[in-house]
Amino acid sequence: MAIARLITKAENEDPEATIALRQLYPKTGRAFLVGITGPPGSGKSTLTDKLVKELRKRNKTVGVIAVDPSSPFTGGAILGDRIRMSDLALDEGVFIRSMGTRGSLGGLSQASHAAIKILDAAGFDYILIETVGVGQSEIDIVKTADTTVVVTVPGLGDDIQAIKAGIMEIGDIFVVNKADRDGADRVVIELSQMLELNQNMGEWFPPILKTVASRNEGIIQLVEKIDAHKDFLNSSGELIIRRKERISNEIFNLILKRVSVEIMRKLAEDNWENELAEILEKRKNPYDVIDRVIKELLQ
Amino acid sequence: MAIARLITKAENEDPEATIALRQLYPKTGRAFLVGITGPPGSGKSTLTDKLVKELRKRNKTVGVIAVDPSSPFTGGAILGDRIRMSDLALDEGVFIRSMGTRGSLGGLSQASHAAIKILDAAGFDYILIETVGVGQSEIDIVKTADTTVVVTVPGLGDDIQAIKAGIMEIGDIFVVNKADRDGADRVVIELSQMLELNQNMGEWFPPILKTVASRNEGIIQLVEKIDAHKDFLNSSGELIIRRKERISNEIFNLILKRVSVEIMRKLAEDNWENELAEILEKRKNPYDVIDRVIKELLQ
Repeated sequence: MAIARLITKAENEDPEATIALRQLYPKTGRAFLVGITGPPGSGKSTLTDKLVKELRKRNKTVGVIAVDPSSPFTGGAILGDRIRMSDLALDEGVFIRSMGTRGSLGGLSQASHAAIKILDAAGFDYILIETVGVGQSEIDIVKTADTTVVVTVPGLGDDIQAIKAGIMEIGDIFVVNKADRDGADRVVIELSQMLELNQNMGEWFPPILKTVASRNEGIIQLVEKIDAHKDFLNSSGELIIRRKERISNEIFNLILKRVSVEIMRKLAEDNWENELAEILEKRKNPYDVIDRVIKELLQ
Repeated sequence: MAIARLITKAENEDPEATIALRQLYPKTGRAFLVGITGPPGSGKSTLTDKLVKELRKRNKTVGVIAVDPSSPFTGGAILGDRIRMSDLALDEGVFIRSMGTRGSLGGLSQASHAAIKILDAAGFDYILIETVGVGQSEIDIVKTADTTVVVTVPGLGDDIQAIKAGIMEIGDIFVVNKADRDGADRVVIELSQMLELNQNMGEWFPPILKTVASRNEGIIQLVEKIDAHKDFLNSSGELIIRRKERISNEIFNLILKRVSVEIMRKLAEDNWENELAEILEKRKNPYDVIDRVIKELLQ
């Protein structure tokens, strides 16, 4: 399939992918991007699965990008994903891709951005970006989304503490999954208390939903809240603000990456090894070298 | 004290710190840098404490930089450190500094590099860099060291698995601390098996030591191994190779940082907001904008 091949090329930083992304750009911006994040064991995969099925019932096409920085696997090779999504495998209105850390986390972030653009240009109505919410990199990936769903479950040891401050701030919708477990209502109360403390709240007050994804409970309500947030983003002008910020960050990162390559090339050239030796022997000051390289590099 | 003030300035990215670092550079390179890393609960702090005392007995002066990315505290404000090191507080041959994440992890890394240079120029014989070995950033900080000591303990749940592959590769000396606990010998065996599998092994085969830091057991042997590794680095020429690589990385990162600021300034100027709007409306292609900015930015 062309989509899968192109994503693989983007993962491999194949120059063809860059050319393709440039050509695809005018076709992007139509898909609605939903980020789904939460700690391991919160049932994000099952929830995503059920969301896909509910959106399909509504005749929407759905792309899924499951990002797991702790997984060395990529290219949709995560067995669990394949099994869980197997009943969707023959549906042409669904595309599922798992991405692990083949290269660096920065590379994963860039590859997932590329994958989103490819699915967007391919015409999918919704793109679900599923990540394990543990580190800064995942937060960066989730920031790509138009709507971010933060998933938690009762009994995660530290309960609500498991949702870090940074994640709390990016949630547009909160889901307490496995809500048939003891303590679900307490988690809801704790979440709403934390949300009320949030000073940076805009016009949208994030709803808190209870789901039991494995039994398909609460999924319709979740889709409705996602669509309500989508309507809010459109009517308030917030969608344009978010997307402007996103494209601005992407452009910055792509420029920085190309400039990094240029700096490395510059440092590798002529007598860098000799210069390093002189620096080590204190015959040259590294800060003078930095000034010189920057002067030579920049206009 | 001048050292403490200067480190604080470096943490705050005060331009005065840059000027001072430039002036201090010719005085650096004399200290021997020892990285001490391991998972939380491995007793790194106690081990560092005992190492300092043993080095002081040998009439060596010692600087300690304790980096904890999970701590919001900085400037030596970590209470536990103060208490534990209190009997060293009046010793002028010892300087201890805790650094937490005031800013970003990248900022922490840069500030700790600056602190190392400041202590080095101040004439300390040894600089111990203590970090929690959990993420890439800590690995980057540890890579600054001439000798890296990786600390583990028996019964860490996953035992040896708690030492991630990346950390395994950077260890010059391995310490099984709290070795009076059950399972210490098994950890030693597992470590040596993992080391034998390492294909990238050079001429130095990393020793594995057992310590009980709280009872000062094994500390003399650890200091001897550190000095043996120091001798190896000097006689093999490896010290110069490592320090060249380190200064090369530092120069690259400092250039990248200054170029980042330049890119941000460039993007902030004139009609960036209008241009973003045009990009969102597909009237401009972001890849063309990237090409233009790079052309304008670079020579």
